[in-house]
This record gives sequence, C-alpha cells and structure tokens, in this order.
Amino acid sequence: MSKSSELLEALKNPTDEEIRSVDAWWRADCYLTAGQIYLQSNPLLRTPLSAEDIKPRLLGHWGTSPGLAFIYAHANRLIKRTGQSMIYITGPGHGGPAIVGATYLEDTYSEIYPRVSQDEEGLHRLFRQFSQPGGIPSHVSVTTPGSINEGGELGYALVHAFGAIFDNPDLIALTVVGDGEAETGPLEGSWKGISFVNPARDGAVLPILHLNGAKIASPTVQARKDPEQLRKLYEGHGYEVLEVTGDDVPGMHYRFAEALATAWGKIRAIQEEARELDENGEMKGLAQVPGNGEMPRWPMIILRTPKGWTGPHEVDGTVVEGTWRAHQVPLAGVRDNAEHLQMLENWFRSYKPEELFDENGAPTELVRANNPEGELRMSANPVANAGGEYQPLDMPDWRELANYFDPAERGKLAGKKESTRYLGEFMRELYKRNPETFRVFCPDELNSNRLGAVLEESDRAWMEETNDLDVSLSRSGRVMEVLSEHNTHGWLEGYTLTGRHGLWASYESFGMVSISQTIQHGKWLEEGIHLDWRTPVPALNLLLSSTCWRNDHNGFSHQGPGMLSSVLNLRGDIVRAYLPPDGNCLLEAASHVFQSTDRVNLIVQDKQPQFQWLTPEEAHEHVKRGYGIWDWAGNEDPDSDGDPDIILGCAGDVVTAEVVAAAQIIRERLPKMKVRVVNVVRPQVLARPKDHPRGMTNIDFTETFTDHVDCVFVFHGYPGTVHQLLHGRPDADRFHARGFIEEGTTTSPFDMVVRNRVDRYHLVEDAINNCKRSIRGGADLKRWCEAQLAKHHAYVVEHLEDMPEIANWEFDGNLGK
Amino acid sequence: MSKSSELLEALKNPTDEEIRSVDAWWRADCYLTAGQIYLQSNPLLRTPLSAEDIKPRLLGHWGTSPGLAFIYAHANRLIKRTGQSMIYITGPGHGGPAIVGATYLEDTYSEIYPRVSQDEEGLHRLFRQFSQPGGIPSHVSVTTPGSINEGGELGYALVHAFGAIFDNPDLIALTVVGDGEAETGPLEGSWKGISFVNPARDGAVLPILHLNGAKIASPTVQARKDPEQLRKLYEGHGYEVLEVTGDDVPGMHYRFAEALATAWGKIRAIQEEARELDENGEMKGLAQVPGNGEMPRWPMIILRTPKGWTGPHEVDGTVVEGTWRAHQVPLAGVRDNAEHLQMLENWFRSYKPEELFDENGAPTELVRANNPEGELRMSANPVANAGGEYQPLDMPDWRELANYFDPAERGKLAGKKESTRYLGEFMRELYKRNPETFRVFCPDELNSNRLGAVLEESDRAWMEETNDLDVSLSRSGRVMEVLSEHNTHGWLEGYTLTGRHGLWASYESFGMVSISQTIQHGKWLEEGIHLDWRTPVPALNLLLSSTCWRNDHNGFSHQGPGMLSSVLNLRGDIVRAYLPPDGNCLLEAASHVFQSTDRVNLIVQDKQPQFQWLTPEEAHEHVKRGYGIWDWAGNEDPDSDGDPDIILGCAGDVVTAEVVAAAQIIRERLPKMKVRVVNVVRPQVLARPKDHPRGMTNIDFTETFTDHVDCVFVFHGYPGTVHQLLHGRPDADRFHARGFIEEGTTTSPFDMVVRNRVDRYHLVEDAINNCKRSIRGGADLKRWCEAQLAKHHAYVVEHLEDMPEIANWEFDGNLGK
Repeated sequence: MSKSSELLEALKNPTDEEIRSVDAWWRADCYLTAGQIYLQSNPLLRTPLSAEDIKPRLLGHWGTSPGLAFIYAHANRLIKRTGQSMIYITGPGHGGPAIVGATYLEDTYSEIYPRVSQDEEGLHRLFRQFSQPGGIPSHVSVTTPGSINEGGELGYALVHAFGAIFDNPDLIALTVVGDGEAETGPLEGSWKGISFVNPARDGAVLPILHLNGAKIASPTVQARKDPEQLRKLYEGHGYEVLEVTGDDVPGMHYRFAEALATAWGKIRAIQEEARELDENGEMKGLAQVPGNGEMPRWPMIILRTPKGWTGPHEVDGTVVEGTWRAHQVPLAGVRDNAEHLQMLENWFRSYKPEELFDENGAPTELVRANNPEGELRMSANPVANAGGEYQPLDMPDWRELANYFDPAERGKLAGKKESTRYLGEFMRELYKRNPETFRVFCPDELNSNRLGAVLEESDRAWMEETNDLDVSLSRSGRVMEVLSEHNTHGWLEGYTLTGRHGLWASYESFGMVSISQTIQHGKWLEEGIHLDWRTPVPALNLLLSSTCWRNDHNGFSHQGPGMLSSVLNLRGDIVRAYLPPDGNCLLEAASHVFQSTDRVNLIVQDKQPQFQWLTPEEAHEHVKRGYGIWDWAGNEDPDSDGDPDIILGCAGDVVTAEVVAAAQIIRERLPKMKVRVVNVVRPQVLARPKDHPRGMTNIDFTETFTDHVDCVFVFHGYPGTVHQLLHGRPDADRFHARGFIEEGTTTSPFDMVVRNRVDRYHLVEDAINNCKRSIRGGADLKRWCEAQLAKHHAYVVEHLEDMPEIANWEFDGNLGK
Repeated sequence: MSKSSELLEALKNPTDEEIRSVDAWWRADCYLTAGQIYLQSNPLLRTPLSAEDIKPRLLGHWGTSPGLAFIYAHANRLIKRTGQSMIYITGPGHGGPAIVGATYLEDTYSEIYPRVSQDEEGLHRLFRQFSQPGGIPSHVSVTTPGSINEGGELGYALVHAFGAIFDNPDLIALTVVGDGEAETGPLEGSWKGISFVNPARDGAVLPILHLNGAKIASPTVQARKDPEQLRKLYEGHGYEVLEVTGDDVPGMHYRFAEALATAWGKIRAIQEEARELDENGEMKGLAQVPGNGEMPRWPMIILRTPKGWTGPHEVDGTVVEGTWRAHQVPLAGVRDNAEHLQMLENWFRSYKPEELFDENGAPTELVRANNPEGELRMSANPVANAGGEYQPLDMPDWRELANYFDPAERGKLAGKKESTRYLGEFMRELYKRNPETFRVFCPDELNSNRLGAVLEESDRAWMEETNDLDVSLSRSGRVMEVLSEHNTHGWLEGYTLTGRHGLWASYESFGMVSISQTIQHGKWLEEGIHLDWRTPVPALNLLLSSTCWRNDHNGFSHQGPGMLSSVLNLRGDIVRAYLPPDGNCLLEAASHVFQSTDRVNLIVQDKQPQFQWLTPEEAHEHVKRGYGIWDWAGNEDPDSDGDPDIILGCAGDVVTAEVVAAAQIIRERLPKMKVRVVNVVRPQVLARPKDHPRGMTNIDFTETFTDHVDCVFVFHGYPGTVHQLLHGRPDADRFHARGFIEEGTTTSPFDMVVRNRVDRYHLVEDAINNCKRSIRGGADLKRWCEAQLAKHHAYVVEHLEDMPEIANWEFDGNLGK
C-alpha cells in the first residue's frame, strides 16, 4: 500500500478519537450559532437563561447552519490530515452565524478582531454583534475571514469558486450550494464550470449540494425529487455523485468523513494523472486531445440533513426540524414564553457547553484539536484574502502599441480604426507577461468585440472534445468564453478576489444581464476598503462594446446603455467609468484600470471603425485629467479671453464624433458663432468634489464650462445621468443633456444618432437654439440642417445605408487656430 | 385501434406526399431566409445573380435558420393533422429570417403587412426590409406575427413558454432552445418549469433542444458532450428525451416526424389521464397526492443538425457547414468575388425555387399545402397576440378592503399596519374573481413580503411530492413560487403576453437580478404599441418590497434601490412608477395597475408596519393626481397666500414618515418657519410634460413647489434620479435631493435613515440650512438636532434597537390648521 493510499484509507476511516473532536467542534459551532441568534448576555449559561439574556429582536437563520458547521468540521479534519489548501464558499449565506462561529473557533476571528476575544467577554461580543446595529450582517460577508462570497444574493457560489481555482493548482474550493440557491438560474448555469477546469494547471471545486429540504416558506424542488433522478441530473452535468443522507450521530460523521475523503482522493487522482509529465516534460493534462474529449469526472457530494438539524424538533405541537419552519428562528416567543425559554435552554445545553468551553470561555482542547494550523485554517487561507499580498501585473507600455499619427491627420477617414483592437493587442501582451495571473472573460463575444488578438497568445480554455475544424480552443487555453454573462462575470470576480487580474467584455446591452453581480461586487468592495486586514483586490474591469449606437443592425433589444447609469449609482470611491473617444485613450484607460485595486472600472467603447483623435501623448494627458477642451475642434479665438457663445460637451465615442462634426459645420457655415468643444473621458469629473472624489474643482469646472454659457452636453448613455452628475454646479440649468432616449430600431448607424437627436444636424440646431446671442445666419443654418435631415431620411430608406456625405465625412482640420 | 391511436400512427408515419409538401415548405423557407440575408433585387432569380442584386451590407444569421424552418415545417404538418393549438417560441432569435419567412409562407405576414404581398413585389419588399433601415430587426421580434419572445437577449425562451401555457389547457408551446442559449444561467434554470405545470389545468411546453454545434465563434458545451451524458442531464431534469440526429434528406423528415408525433402523443396521454374525472367530477390531475409525487414525464426532443444545414458546405477550402463559421453570413464576399457569387446562386437554386413560387412569385400549392388554416397557423394563433382580444380582470372594489380611520387619527401608532398586507388581501379577491386569468409570481418571498393572504384562496402550484407538514402547496395551486427571479419574472411575462394578468413581487434589491428581463419586456411593449394589429397586453406589474430602508437586519447586500432608477430610464409611455406612502394608497395604485395595458408598473412599498396617513377617499385623489400638498403635515397659514419658507418633498413610504416627523419638529420647535410638505406618489409627475406624459403642468408645478422656494426633496431611491426628473423645472437648482446614498449596513431601522442623512433630524437641519430667510431659533434647533443624533448613536449601540422616542413616535395632529 503506497503512502498516499494509506493516507486515503485513514481519511476514510476516522478513529473514534478524531470523531470525538470533530463532533465537539461541530457542537461548539452549533452552540455559537444559536448564541448569536438568541443571546445578549450570559453566553456560557452560567445561570439559567432569563428573559433578559434574550436579544430584543431575534434575527438570523438557524435552518442551514448546523449542516454548514458539520461540513466545516469535517473539512478541518481533512485539512489537518492532508495539509490540503482549501477555502470554504458558503452558498447558503443565511448560515452566517455558523461560519462566523467557525472562524471564531479557529481563532482567526479574534486575531483580526481582538475585541472578540477567546473568553467570556469575547463570546459576549460575538453574540451581541450579530445582525445588530454596529455589528455584522446575518450573512457570510466581507467581514467574515476566509470568505470571498457574500451570501446575500443567491446564485454565485459556484462561479466564485471556479474563478478562485483557475490558475491556483493547489487549491480546493469547498463550495456548499443550498437547495434554495440551487433553484436560481445563475447557479443552475454554473455547474458547467468543469468544462473549463484543467486539472494540470487549475485547482478544483468540490461542490456539496446541501439539501435540507426547504427554503423560506416551502420545500425545494430538488429536495423533493426522486434521488435517483437527481443523481442523474448531476451525472448529466458531468460529476461523479457521492451521497450522504441522515441525521444520526455519530453515524453521519463516519459516513460523511468517508465521502469527503473519497471526493478528495478522486480530485487528487485526477490532478496527479494530469500533472504527470510526458516525454517532452510537459504536463499531460495540458495537451490538446483532438477527438478525445474525455473529461475528468470531478466528484461532488449530495448531503441531505434536516433543516434545523439538532435544533428544536417540535414546537407547540408542530414539527419544526426538517421543515421550512426551521429557516429562521425556530423558537420565537422565548422572551415571553417560559416554556419556550426552557426549550431554548435545553437546546443550548444539549450541546454540552461545559465540554466545549473552558472556565474562561475559551474553546477547550477537545474542540481546538480539530483546528488546522496557521494559514491552513480556511478562515486564514491567504487565497481568500486576495492572495494575501497584492501582486501587480507586469505591465506593457501601451505606447509601444499605440496609434502614432500626425496631429494634422486627426479625424481623417483613412485613420479610422476599430479602437477595441488596440485593447486586444494590449491584453495579448498582458497574457504574454503574466501567464498565470491574467485572464480575459467573455460571453462568447471576444472576436465579435475585436479583442481576438489575445488568442494569438492563448487559446480558449476547453476541456470538452475538439476536432480539426476548431480554432484557438484547447485544454491549455486560458481565455474564458462561454455563452453566459453570469458565469464569465462571476469567474472574474472569483479570480480577482483571490488576487489575480482580468477583464470581462460584453455587448453593452447585455451588461444588464449580470448587473446585479456587478453591483454586489461593488458593495463587497465598498465594505472591504474599510477593513484594514483585507488585502487590496485587483479591480473588476468591465468593457462594454457593441454599444447601443452601433447596434443599428441588431435592433432595439441590443440598444441599452443602462449598465453605465446603474454603475454610476454606486459609491464614487469604488466606481470609475471611462468613455474613451478613441483607441489611444482606450489604451491609456486600460493601462490605468489594470493597475488599480478595489475598483469597479467600466469602460465603454464601440467595436466599429472610429475616427482617431488624439496622439498618444495627448491621450495620456487627456485621460489622466479626465476631460479637456479640444480647441482644435472649436473655433474660439485663441488670442481672446472672451467666452464662447456655446459649449458642446461630449462623453462617449460615437457622440463625440457627432459633436466634432457639428462644430465643424458651425465653423464652416456660421463662423461668427464661437463654439467650444469639451470632451469628457471620465464622466465622474462632472460631479462636485464633495459628491465624487474625482470631481473637478470649481475652478477647473468654470475654466472649462464657464459659469454661465449654455452647454449642449451629449452623453453616451441616458441623458438623465448628466443632470445627476452636474447637480450643484454653477447654473446647472444651462446644461442641456442629450443622449440615448430609448429611440432604437433596426436602421443605419447615422440614423441611430438622428433618432435620438444627437446627430450633427440636430446638435447644430441645438447649439443655435441655446446660444444666448442671436447670430445672423443662424436661422438659415437651422433650415439647412433640416434639409440635410430630410435628405438623410430619403436616402437611407432608398439605399439601405448611410449617405456618402456621412459615411465619408472627415475632419477638416482646425479652423479655429 | 382507437381513432386517436390511429391518428397517432398516421402522424408517426407520414406519407411520401406529406413529406413532399413538408420538404417543399422547408425549402421555400430556407430560400426566403437566404433571400432576406442577401438580396435587394431579383428575388425570384429570374436572371442570373449579379453584384447589384446583393445588399450593400450583409447582415443576418444563417446558421440556426434551416433547423428552425425544418421544425416549423413539421409542426405545421402536426397541426394540420391534429388541429392542435400551438405557438412557436424561437429561442435562437438570430433565426429571425426563417421565422419571418415562415409567417410569410403562411400568408399571415401579408395579411398584417399588405405591402409585403404574396407576389414578386412583396418578396422584394420582404427581402429588402430585413435588418435594414426602416425595416425589421434580424431577430424574431415584436413585428413578427405569432411571436411572444424576442430573440435578442438569450435565456428566456422556456420561461416565456411556461408562462404562456399556465391556465391555457389547450395550448402547446413548441419551444426551440438553441445550444448557445442553453449555456445561459436563466435558461438552465428554467427546465424545472415542469414542476409547476398541472396537466389538467395547464397546457404543455414541448422543448426542442436544437444542437447545431456552435455559437458565434466556438463550439457549445452541450454539443460536444457525450450524447449519453446529455440525455442523463435532461432525464435528470425530469423529461423523457427523444433524439433525432442527422443531415440526410428525406431520412431526417421521417425520423423527425416520428419524434414530433411521439412527443405530441405523450403530451396528449398525460393530459387525458390528468383530465379524467374522478367520482366527484373533479379532474384527477388536480387532486393533491400527498406522499405520491409521481410527476408526469413530459417529452422533449434533442435535435442535432449541422449549423448552416443546406448552405455552402465549404468555402475557399474551409468547411463552413456544421461549424461556427456558418453562424452569420457564410459567403461574405459575393459582391466582389465572382466565384462566391456563383456559389450563392447555386445555393439559391439548390432549393428549386421554380417548384416553390409560381410565376407571380406566390408560394405554390405544393408549399401552401403544408400551411394550417386560419388561427391554427402558429403565426396567427391569437394566444400569441395577448389572447386576441383584451380581457379585463373582474376587479374588486378596493374600498371594501381599505383602512378606514378618522383623519384626526392619522399617523397614530395604533394605526401602524403592514401596508403590503392590504395588497395581499386585494389579490386574494382577484384570485377569487378570476380563477383562470390571474396569478401571483414570487421568488419564494410571498409570505415574507406579507402577501400571504392569496394563499387563503389558492395554494402554491406544486407537482412534486408533498407531505403532511406542507402547507398551501398542491397540484391545484395557482400561486407561483420558486427561488428564481428569472423563472418567476419570465413566467409573468409569458402569462401577460398571452393576455392574462398578474403581479411579480420581490425583495427590492433582488429586482436587479432580473432587471434585464424587465427592460427587455419594456422594450417589447415600446415597440408593440406602434403595431396596431397587436392586442393590448395586460401590464407587467412589479412590486418591490423588503426595501433598502428596512433591510437593516440583512445588511448592505439587501440594500439596493437600483431597479427604480433603471426602470425610470425606459420610455415614459411604458413605465409607471408608484411609491405609495401607505396602505390605502397602495390599494388605489394596485387598482390602477391591474387595469392598465402595455405598461411596466413598478410599485415600491416596504413590508414592515407603517404609519397610515390617508383615508380611502384621500388616497384615491392623491394617487390619481400623483402628488399633493399635505397641508395637515405642514404649518402654512391656511389664510395666507404667501409662500412657505421651505418645502419638504417626499416620495416613498419610509422617507415620507421622516419628512412628516421633521415637519412636526419644525412646527413644535420653530413655528415661525413655514414649512410645506409635498408627497409624491408617482415620481414621474416631477418631469416636464414634454419629457413625460404624466408630468405636471407648469402651473401645477409652481402651485405645488412655487418657482423659487428651496425644496429638500427626499426620495426613496438614489437621489440623482430626482435631479434627472426635475431637469428643466423652474430654478431646478433649488431642489436638494436626498435619498439612498449607498450607506448601508447591518443596523437598526432608524440608523439606516440616519446613515443616509434622511432622518428627521438631518432633514430639519437641511430645512434650516436651505431656508433663504434667517429665523431666530434656527441655530438652536440645529444644535438640538445634533444632540438627538448623538443620543441616537449612543443608544442604538448600547441597546441594539431604536430609542423609544423613535420607535414610538407618532404624528401629533395638525398644528398648522
């Protein structure tokens, strides 16, 4: 018998002594869980419980907690025996008190929060803080050591787990999926993660589907399924299913220990086979195997235990344990009902706290014997704390990839480029320099969004069968594509929360599919920055391309800039939005975002050929500053101190081109009207500094926008966002916001801007209408604009494309200088 | 052999003549598909194709289309033989041209759009309009007769299908799921719909998983799975799996015809058994069967055909058919490449158009023989057109359920009620009066949101096993609960798009999980109202409860009012938002929304006990108007014409209570300061009439808000939304918007408003600071407010709950009158 198979045998067959310790640890955690829900004093039950010991408001969720604690206790034993690096992802976030209790038993909690010490006073604080003012949430959350998954919004346990184990070959993410969460779409869509896990290079996810039978108020679908059918479902997903069912103790301990050991053994066997070296010294598992898509059959466990296991079985003649009634607080009337209070006390005492906590209130040696050491504790594993130390990317210099041109050539037709291609090339270099810490995630739109250059450096990850017609698809690939916003977004979250870097790219409108993940991740970061023990997390970088303005062919369903507005509602210290007008600005922005931490960075840039406006040097300054007057686009007299007649502001690539064109029309046809063009890359600069940390100073604002000249401001997204940002600026009413007003359809590119009234002709009319000074010729120019619009309408319907004057428009050079 | 088994046998064994017609119909649809993608003239290929016949910009998606057309052709045969009422839900929306082509072959298209006639001119228009300016989208969309599912954003085919068949016993929703869509979370989570379908009372969904092997740029996971494993997956979901694979013709016709007939036979058998009457004359399938959860095994079909089937197999030496390369336009260079042009011509001619279209260009009898008649055509089935005729609900009078109280008692503590309970009771009455056309949909939060009264009238729908501990759960139930926002939201969409009524209720923050469905449905309605052949669709009614302000115990992840902002970005003619301040206003709002059509109605109201402010009569007027001055809350002199010193505006239940309390403090402690309280129920009234159809007139606006007095406006959601709405109102800068500023945590209810600075004390300070007149005593009152806040902070941390003064606060009656 080899040493490793000996170990596996020993793991599968725990000694009674081991089980005693596991059981004590479990009981201690159950006790701590109930304590957090109920007690505001007398944490060790030194005297009989009295009504005053009970919290005034009973909050928290008992139902799922004992099972979570049970799994945790057994994982600890496994780690102690094997030295396995493991993190614990708690899908049933309502089990917060069990996980907080576990980290307390492991002493990690007291190390991080010394006031919650390992004694009676600490226990008291532990209990009081739970779900209370000034305390901690009822879910596993940012404040919980070892967590990378907020249990508040259900659905993302597995995607976070897979994200964490990519490029983390030594890690197992033990991931509990509750049977409530198992009903959500995002979770059901996430089992397929194994199709993208390479056992040679990645770690492993060990899912435990924890069926406790019920959600808030009903049974769950999976809990009531015929077990045979359910097993088929998960075998159909590609897993080897292990099942443990029951509520008998200690029998459950022995059976679960065996199942967990078996699962671990299978994972190790898969990994060892994949990591064997072939004759060239390459790991076998990284070889592409055309025509042979045999996938590893990763293990998973279905664990069935009663909801509220070990809690009150029956209350007032109604069965509670095993039903939805155990979901939250199984004994509710304890403050006023002596019988309930006695039941509560019996329940607490059933765990034999005298065996679990010593005279001072610290966990006894019996309990502590089940704790792993140091960083092997799941609550102290640095992986779950952004890797423990921030590791920046090895960054290329974007100027080596930039678009160099003579400023006299700016805005020329010949210089039109697909700006996102620059980003693809930049990320190709990131792949090259950071072969283990950088990945791109995309819901099947990488090439469509012109980011395909990364495929020159890495294939798409793919463990399923391949054939000779496939391209850029292999087991060694590290580009992540699957047609699921939820998977790809969640994977990036897990990847960055464990300290690595990446970008998620989507069609703009479909950013809303997973916006709730974006918001919840933002909230995680908002809380995390207040915790000094949390390592900075590499930014969540999001690119929206195939934007509303250029989905003229796909139609209205593909025209929605809502994600930009939604993200700007988050706190300014977390969110940064970038609306680069061209490729060089995009490169500069990318260079920023990949070096930032604790941020949600949203970049919006279309994929179609665009005018290129700024040289690399100019782009660097412009993006850094976040905005700028483009005096080459306007026609102010450079020698005059006077104010312009009108300001045309713009933020966003397509609308910027229209603003520049409108200014050109004014220069050519109404030169007496002095127009200033202001381009804004970072829309948040528009906000007052007190409303946003990146807001322009008042001086900068009035230098740019004056304090009284009217400004037609054209925004990439919904115009209301501009009013929101500008609130409180001098005479904010003079800003006339334009943008996407939900006028979409299937049409031509130019017609899209016309329908939303942000085309050059409408903007010229707008400028004239809002100019305080009456300028001779203005009325004529408005009539000319009307005529152009009429011509456009006639042409586009006849020819099914844009007028040549529009399609071939180019910038005529600076008349203003 | 019975008549029905004879029919089934005949269905399974088509005659050669039938197949000839099916095949011709299929070829005709493939021809029309390719024509829509490529041709702008010469639709019948009367002359050899020339470059001028080819559209200038080639758009559209060929890959999935032939398979969709194939299924459609066979469904037609089934309908013709059986008279089955059926609709076709096209998950792979990119197959738009095939479905538009199908509806054209069925003549429905020409009936609705007479210009697209059944002749050469009509063909010409059909081809030109596709994905072109002034034309139709490339997806199955609102303009496509027979469709209730926009194929733009993938994931919702099955949820729409299940929604359509609830309470539609005679309907089969034939639903094609593409293998791209099959990778999305929402779709993967939607197979479980069968756990809620009662074969006695509901119709059936027949899913066809159409594996054509690839998505945009890669193979799909399911297409590369071992077929045995994939079958297990769907058997695990509870289906009986039929499989048809191949590309051989006519072999595929015979095999698919048999599979489709078999599936139909199984559906009918399940339904017939369930609809048998028991000894009491009740349908057997409606009986609750405790302990016996044997579910019907509904059939599904896995159809494997090559992507781009019947199109060019190889282009320039590269295989196209069967790979992702066939996704969009398989031959791209036809305008400039004579060889490609010839290939295109050969491709067109391979369908033998001369057999398919007569001399005038109309489909030949051979083709038309495969069309069902009249409303049996899937494109003309009234079900898919909101039922064909708008059927209003039988409405209860909400005043019979209202909260009657003496106005002198308003805002008294004894009057605190959980407002959402009124809505639960109202909907209980709707269930009672509309036993086949009204349902409530909720992601497992019905009771939590205090809507449980509906369970007095109907159980939850549940086909899985039940046991004696379950409550309100049965096969006859019609309340829809499953822990999935995507399922429940999508079901309501399908339910209303087929003409029935309902409401979806969610925790406020988790509204963002499915916000993309809300937006896409809104876009659907925005397009639909322009089509006069579309029947008005009952409103999509959404209730957000458990709001950000009262998730003090659940913490930051549960505190997100983003849905309100997102929905307000949609067009005003579709969206109506309601922020009722109390239960009577909620009832009045509910009474409106259940009678409205072509709307997304969003109601936000918390579930905790709330002060009740308005009598039923007052509530009726207030909600109808949308806003009102609450002069009983302010302290203006009723006999004076003068303006107040300050206006306190409010929209939203919790913040309204704080505003009323702030006004009371001012009345009591600074009576010289004249404060006006304005409550807004419909926030969109704040917008100018030109920006929103419900916007107040300018006269009403200035009568309410004056044109110069400062207003502290406290909003339920993000304050930026207020600035967005108020833009362009007289001196909009004088409005100081307050609201949820993303300052959430686990705390007490009052501390939540304090942290976001919308508590009564901050509001009094705000009022004084923004009052243009300096009032003696103001500084003292501000100091007093500071002291109160300090007291609050100390108290809440010590006692883990709100100060008694706060918890027991009540309205003191109107000092102002």
